[in-house]
Amino acid sequence: MNTPLDSFDELLPGQRFDYGSFRLSEAEIITYARDFDPQPFHTDPEAARAAPLFGGLVASGLHTMGMCFGMIMRSGIWTRISLGGSGIDTKWPAPLRPDEEVAVASVVESVKASRSRPEMGVAMVRHLGTRVADGVVVIDMLGTHFLKR
Amino acid sequence: MNTPLDSFDELLPGQRFDYGSFRLSEAEIITYARDFDPQPFHTDPEAARAAPLFGGLVASGLHTMGMCFGMIMRSGIWTRISLGGSGIDTKWPAPLRPDEEVAVASVVESVKASRSRPEMGVAMVRHLGTRVADGVVVIDMLGTHFLKR
Repeated sequence: MNTPLDSFDELLPGQRFDYGSFRLSEAEIITYARDFDPQPFHTDPEAARAAPLFGGLVASGLHTMGMCFGMIMRSGIWTRISLGGSGIDTKWPAPLRPDEEVAVASVVESVKASRSRPEMGVAMVRHLGTRVADGVVVIDMLGTHFLKR
Repeated sequence: MNTPLDSFDELLPGQRFDYGSFRLSEAEIITYARDFDPQPFHTDPEAARAAPLFGGLVASGLHTMGMCFGMIMRSGIWTRISLGGSGIDTKWPAPLRPDEEVAVASVVESVKASRSRPEMGVAMVRHLGTRVADGVVVIDMLGTHFLKR
């Protein structure tokens, strides 16, 4: 299933890739957030209890993004064809708490050959992180990817 | 200028906040990308020279996001009122190369009281990272933020 893609032309709308799952410990959440998103509900378990929307420590959404992309890229599926990207529209429909298991998958939304660059195509790919315990989506990212033909 | 906000109600569309600037070294770019976005044009300066769109090492867009949010949150402007967020629509109009200086700023796009939660409001805020040398925007993030009234 995780065979590396050799060309943009192998992609079809609806195609799905599964990468396995990850968890973030409280310590990992705090370490990341201290550098990249220092807010009490990401860095201080005590203060986070008083956070009106979360009531406890939650992962920075940027950390969740990075964990997903780490898995997506380490799968090797995209390595031969990924040329870069120009945008990601990200939603966090639910918070991610320490030690919750998140399954990561991608679904191809659309594919389009590039007019200006015949050697590449543009794919819109939705990347999803789903909490395994209850199927709730914790991150939904629609990425614009430039891929080698 | 960087006085902490005390309430969502102090925000007005068009308001702008400036946070200073950052640079990412080659080593920092590689360290981040190994964990969160392992692609040759983010992790291997040699291989990156052959990258068709970049022709050299560039920062992971996720790293640029994190650097901006680190500065935004450390400014203290949002600390008293930030309750969390539900999404960020991010574009990377130009690549960020090692040691380029990036100035970070936010502009309030819109504000709306929450109907279901009178104690908070929702602000759409555009966060921009601009290359100081030539004024080119390298990251443009439109965030949906929940803020205390």
